[in-house]
Amino acid sequence: MERIIRGIHQFQKDIFGSEKELFERLASGQSPEALFITCSDSRINPNLVTQTKPGDLFIMRNAGNIIPPYGAANGGEGATIEYAVSALGIKDIIVCGHTHCGAMSGLLNLHKLTSMPSVVSWLQHAEATRRIIEEKYQDDTGDDLLTDTIKENVLVQLKNLETHPVVAAGMATGRLTLHGWVYEFETGKIYSYDPSQGKFVSLTNALKELAPKEQVKGA
Amino acid sequence: MERIIRGIHQFQKDIFGSEKELFERLASGQSPEALFITCSDSRINPNLVTQTKPGDLFIMRNAGNIIPPYGAANGGEGATIEYAVSALGIKDIIVCGHTHCGAMSGLLNLHKLTSMPSVVSWLQHAEATRRIIEEKYQDDTGDDLLTDTIKENVLVQLKNLETHPVVAAGMATGRLTLHGWVYEFETGKIYSYDPSQGKFVSLTNALKELAPKEQVKGA
Amino acid sequence: MERIIRGIHQFQKDIFGSEKELFERLASGQSPEALFITCSDSRINPNLVTQTKPGDLFIMRNAGNIIPPYGAANGGEGATIEYAVSALGIKDIIVCGHTHCGAMSGLLNLHKLTSMPSVVSWLQHAEATRRIIEEKYQDDTGDDLLTDTIKENVLVQLKNLETHPVVAAGMATGRLTLHGWVYEFETGKIYSYDPSQGKFVSLTNALKELAPKEQVKGA
Amino acid sequence: MERIIRGIHQFQKDIFGSEKELFERLASGQSPEALFITCSDSRINPNLVTQTKPGDLFIMRNAGNIIPPYGAANGGEGATIEYAVSALGIKDIIVCGHTHCGAMSGLLNLHKLTSMPSVVSWLQHAEATRRIIEEKYQDDTGDDLLTDTIKENVLVQLKNLETHPVVAAGMATGRLTLHGWVYEFETGKIYSYDPSQGKFVSLTNALKELAPKEQVKGA
Amino acid sequence: MERIIRGIHQFQKDIFGSEKELFERLASGQSPEALFITCSDSRINPNLVTQTKPGDLFIMRNAGNIIPPYGAANGGEGATIEYAVSALGIKDIIVCGHTHCGAMSGLLNLHKLTSMPSVVSWLQHAEATRRIIEEKYQDDTGDDLLTDTIKENVLVQLKNLETHPVVAAGMATGRLTLHGWVYEFETGKIYSYDPSQGKFVSLTNALKELAPKEQVKGA
Amino acid sequence: MERIIRGIHQFQKDIFGSEKELFERLASGQSPEALFITCSDSRINPNLVTQTKPGDLFIMRNAGNIIPPYGAANGGEGATIEYAVSALGIKDIIVCGHTHCGAMSGLLNLHKLTSMPSVVSWLQHAEATRRIIEEKYQDDTGDDLLTDTIKENVLVQLKNLETHPVVAAGMATGRLTLHGWVYEFETGKIYSYDPSQGKFVSLTNALKELAPKEQVKGA
Ligand SMILES: [Zn+2]
Ligand SMILES: [Zn+2]
Ligand SMILES: [Zn+2]
Ligand SMILES: [Zn+2]
Ligand SMILES: [Zn+2]
Ligand SMILES: [Zn+2]
Repeated sequence: MERIIRGIHQFQKDIFGSEKELFERLASGQSPEALFITCSDSRINPNLVTQTKPGDLFIMRNAGNIIPPYGAANGGEGATIEYAVSALGIKDIIVCGHTHCGAMSGLLNLHKLTSMPSVVSWLQHAEATRRIIEEKYQDDTGDDLLTDTIKENVLVQLKNLETHPVVAAGMATGRLTLHGWVYEFETGKIYSYDPSQGKFVSLTNALKELAPKEQVKGA
Repeated sequence: MERIIRGIHQFQKDIFGSEKELFERLASGQSPEALFITCSDSRINPNLVTQTKPGDLFIMRNAGNIIPPYGAANGGEGATIEYAVSALGIKDIIVCGHTHCGAMSGLLNLHKLTSMPSVVSWLQHAEATRRIIEEKYQDDTGDDLLTDTIKENVLVQLKNLETHPVVAAGMATGRLTLHGWVYEFETGKIYSYDPSQGKFVSLTNALKELAPKEQVKGA
Repeated sequence: MERIIRGIHQFQKDIFGSEKELFERLASGQSPEALFITCSDSRINPNLVTQTKPGDLFIMRNAGNIIPPYGAANGGEGATIEYAVSALGIKDIIVCGHTHCGAMSGLLNLHKLTSMPSVVSWLQHAEATRRIIEEKYQDDTGDDLLTDTIKENVLVQLKNLETHPVVAAGMATGRLTLHGWVYEFETGKIYSYDPSQGKFVSLTNALKELAPKEQVKGA
Repeated sequence: MERIIRGIHQFQKDIFGSEKELFERLASGQSPEALFITCSDSRINPNLVTQTKPGDLFIMRNAGNIIPPYGAANGGEGATIEYAVSALGIKDIIVCGHTHCGAMSGLLNLHKLTSMPSVVSWLQHAEATRRIIEEKYQDDTGDDLLTDTIKENVLVQLKNLETHPVVAAGMATGRLTLHGWVYEFETGKIYSYDPSQGKFVSLTNALKELAPKEQVKGA
Repeated sequence: MERIIRGIHQFQKDIFGSEKELFERLASGQSPEALFITCSDSRINPNLVTQTKPGDLFIMRNAGNIIPPYGAANGGEGATIEYAVSALGIKDIIVCGHTHCGAMSGLLNLHKLTSMPSVVSWLQHAEATRRIIEEKYQDDTGDDLLTDTIKENVLVQLKNLETHPVVAAGMATGRLTLHGWVYEFETGKIYSYDPSQGKFVSLTNALKELAPKEQVKGA
Repeated sequence: MERIIRGIHQFQKDIFGSEKELFERLASGQSPEALFITCSDSRINPNLVTQTKPGDLFIMRNAGNIIPPYGAANGGEGATIEYAVSALGIKDIIVCGHTHCGAMSGLLNLHKLTSMPSVVSWLQHAEATRRIIEEKYQDDTGDDLLTDTIKENVLVQLKNLETHPVVAAGMATGRLTLHGWVYEFETGKIYSYDPSQGKFVSLTNALKELAPKEQVKGA
C-alpha cells in the first residue's frame, strides 16, 4: 500500500496540474464515447491501451468480463449497462477479453475451484462458452485451448449482452453498435471479431480502412 | 470509435515498446498489490491516480462502486472479490467512491429513474446509504448532500464487503485490510476514512506518517 | 368438464383403436423431430397445424411463448429445452407466436395488469420486445402494433434461447437449427422469419423450395 | 423439418377450410373450458385425447407437468395459471401426468443427470414426490415404481398448485375445481384421482356417473 | 435493557437452581415433542401457554407465523422445518396464529407499508390469504375481518407447509401430523382447526376427548 | 401432543387468571423493550431466562440464530427486523447463541448433512463463521471448537444484521444498539460480547456496573 500512496502523492504533485483544466471541466458532467467492458485483471489498463483520457471511457470490470443475460443476475452488470445506454447515451459497447485470463482458465478447470464457490457460481454465466469448447474444440490443448476459450467467451458474452432490453432496442433502431475484442497484452495487439469473416482480426487493419474515410471527412 | 482505434494504433506504435519487457514478464502471471473497487465513471483512471503500472492493481468497476452483501446478488462482485483474495492472495482492498457520482445522485432521486429499472434495483444494495442520509443528514442540501451520500456509501459498502466469507476470515486473521476512499477528481485529492477520527482525511497526511517508517525500512 | 370427459370416452371408443399400433410402439420411447415452443392459447393445436401424429413433436407451452434467458428463471423452460436437446437429441427448435396473442396484448398494456402480478413479472422476460416496440414502432397502432409486437417477440425469444448452453453449443457445431414462426390462425397460414430478407415470409414459399430438393432425394 | 412443413401445407390445403368459420370466430377471442397442464412429451396430444377443438383447452406444457409452488420459480407456470384464472375465468384445472414419463424416470435417477443441470434443478420442484416414493414405496421396482412416481407426482403438483393465490381463492369460494389425471397412452385410458377413495380410477366410470345427471339436465 | 439484565441475574440467582438437573440433562441433547411455529409478537410465550419446560418445544418465530412454500424463500423457515423433522424426528407441527396480529393487520393494509418494503415483500407469502379474504369475506369489517384473516392465514400456511418434502413424506407415511391453532391471548384460549367441521374449535373440547383415551393408556 | 394440550388446559385454569389484567391491557397493543433473536432450540426460553413477561420481548427464532445479510434471503428475518425497528420502534437488538447448538455443530460437519439440503443451504449464511473457524482456530477440537464457532457466529450475524438499512440507519443516528450474547444453558449464565475487550464476558459483571448508575437514577 505504501507504493500506492506514494503514487497518489506523485499524481497530485506532478501530474494533476497538467490536466487541471480537463478535470475541472469534467466536474460538470461526463459524456464518454464508449462503454468498455473488460476483466479485472491487473495487466489491463483500458485508458493506456486506447490512449484515452479521463472522461473518454465508461468502464465496467469484473473477473472474466462476463455479462449475465438480462434477468439472470442482480449484480451490477445489468444496471451499469442500462445506465451507460439510457443515462449517458453511449453508442458503442466494447466487450474486451484478454490473453492468459485466469477466469477463463478456471472455466476449463472448474473442479479445481472447490474452495472458490462464488467463482464457480459466477462462471455459470459462461457455461455456454464451456459447452461450445467441449463440443467444438475437442482437439485443442494448452495455450490454443485457453485462447479459443477467451475468444468464444467474448462472443457468448455479446449474445448475453443482446438480451438486455436497452441493448436490444438500441440495436433494433441502429443507435447502438457492439464490438468483441481480445487484447493480447504480451504483444500490445487487439483483435476484433469480424462477423463477415467469422473470426477475430487485428484492429490495425480496421485502422487502415478507417484512414481514407477519415480523410474524406477531413476534406 | 475512430479516436479509440487510432489510440490503440498509437499505443502499439509509440508506447508498447517501452513497456515490452514488463508485459512479457506479466504473461507468466499477475500478483497485484491491491484490489481496487471503484465506479464505472469515465473520469476515474485508478492507474493514473495511483501512478501504478499494469500488474499493480486488480480492478473491479461498476456503477456506484457498490458491493452487494454476501449472498445478496449473483453478479460478478462476490466472485471477483473471492478470486482476488483466494486465488491472488490480495492483502488490501480499497473501496473508492468519487465526487459528482451519478449513481449516488440517482440514489437521492430514485423517483426520476423509472425508465431505468435495473439501476433502481441495483441501488437496493445502497438502500442503507439512502436511509442513513434520510435520517441523519436532514439539513443537508445540494453538493454537501451528494458528497455526504458518497462518503456514507463507501462506509456502507465496506460493511457489505465484510459479510463476504473470504473477507471476514482475512480480517479475523489479520491478513487483510480494508480501505475506504473518496476521490475528488476536480482537485486530484483522495480522502481516506480514518476510523479513529470517525471521518475522511486527506491521504497526503497518511503519506507523511509513512515517510519515516519507509526510511527505516530503506536503511 | 362433462364435454371433455365425453370426448375422452369417444377417443377411447372411436379413435384409439385406429392408432393402437402407433401408441404401443411409442410405449418403448419417443424420438420427436422437433421441439415446438408456443403459447398456451387455446386456439393453437401444434399437431393439427403441422398434421403430425403423437410422437412427432416435443411441445412446450406457456403464456406468450416466452423463453427466459439462461439463468434468468428457474421455471420449466430451461429444463425442458435442455431435456429436448440433451436427452432426446432434438435438431430443430421452433418458436411459434400467434396472431391475437393475449400475453402480447398485455405487454402493450402493463398498467392494466395490476391484478395479475405474476403475469407482469413473467412479461419482464419480454421487456426487450416492449422496448423495441416503444422505440422502433412509434407510428404503429391497433392490429398492426399487436402483430409487430408478436413478430418482434419471436425474434427476442430466439435471442433468449441462444443464451442456453445446450443451444449455443448445438448452434456452434451446426447440429441445431432455430426457427421463428408466427401462426395466423384466422387464415391458417404460418410465417417464418427469413434472416436473409430480415422479415417473416409465408412457409408456403419454403415448401416450394423444398420440393425439388425432395425430388432429388426421392429419385 | 420437411415433413413438418409439408404437414403445414396439407393443413392449409385440406383441413383449414372445413374449420374456417370456427377459426374466424375465434379471432375475436377465446373462452376455453379448462386449463390443461401436461408434460411436453411428444406422445400426448390433449386435443386428440379429449376430442376437443381449437378454442376448448388452454394448455400449459413442460417437462414433467410440474408446477412450482407460488413464489418458488419465476418461470411461466405461475403466470400462465394466473392468466387462465384471472383473465380467462377458467373454472377447471387438470394436471395430467402420463405413463413412461422421462422426467419422472429422471427423478428416480438424479445421479444419471449430471450433464443436465437445469433438469436436475427443475426436478427440485418434484422433490416432495421423490421423498414420498423413497419413504413409502420401498418395495416398489421397475414399471410399478415409475407408475407410482407418476401418480404421486400429480398429487404433489396439485398441492403446489393450491399455494397459488388465484387458485387458493378460487377454491375457497368454490369457483374453481382441480383434477388430477394420469394418461396411459398405450391403452388410451385416463385415470382420475378420487379423493374419497384415495386412489386413481378410470374416467370411464366417471362418465357413467355423468350420464344420468346429464339426462336430467337434458330433460 | 437494564430490566432485562436484572431479570437474567434474578434467573441465575433464584430460578436456575431449581431446574439445574433438567438443564444438565439437556446438555446431552434435546428431543422436543413438537415444532411450534408462531409469530414474533411479544405477547406470546409458547412455553407459558402450554405449560411446558425447556426441552419440550422446538420453536420457530417470525412476523406473522408465515411459512413460505418449498423453494419460495431461502430464509430460515425451510431449514428449521427440515431440521426439526429430519434431525430431531419431530412428529407434530403446530402453526399457531394469534389475535390482534400486527402482521395480518398489515396484510389488510399493504398500502400503509411503503416505508417497510421488506415486510411487504415477506407478506407475499400470505398473498393467498389476502385474496381469499378479498373474495370470500367481502362483508367483513373491523375485528371480525382481522380475526378471519388470522384464521385463514393459519390454513394457508399449513398448505404452504405441506409443499416441503420432509413434511409431504411424513404425512404420506402417517408419521407426521399438522395442527392449525389460533391463540386468543386476551382470554387465554386456543382454538384448533377441525377439518371434519371445517372450522376452528376450542382446544378445551379436544381435552375432553383426550381424557378417556389417556385413562386407558394409564390403566 | 396430549401433554401439550393438558398444559394448555392447566394454563387456562391455573395461570391465566393471575395475569388477566396484563393480557387484557396487551390486547390494545404491544411495545416490547427489545428484539430477541435466538435459536429454535427447545432448551431456550427467552422469557424464562430474562424473567420477562408477555409484552416485553419481540422474539425471532430460527435454526442457528442466523440473520442473512440484507437482500440475501427473502425469508422472514429481514421483514421481522424491519417490523421491529420501523413499526415497533425497538431500540435494542439481542442476537443470542447458545451452547451445544445443533445448527453450529452441523456447520462444522456439512458433509454429514446431505439428507438435509435446506439446512446446508441455510448455513451458507454462516459461511463466514465456518471460514473464520477454519483459518483462525486450527488447533481447536471438541467442545472448545463448537463453543468458539457459536461465539464467532454471533459476531458474524451481528455483521450481517448491520447491513439491513433500518439497522444501519438506527446505528448511524445512535437510536439503536446491538448486543451479542451466548447463553450457556447448563449453567444458566449469559455471556455478552464486549468490543472494548474483544471477548465475551459474563453479564453478571454488566449488572454490577449497572447497579450504581441505577442508584443514581433512583436517587
Ligand atoms: Zn481475465
Ligand atoms: Zn460514480
Ligand atoms: Zn398467446
Ligand atoms: Zn413426461
Ligand atoms: Zn403476530
Ligand atoms: Zn441452536
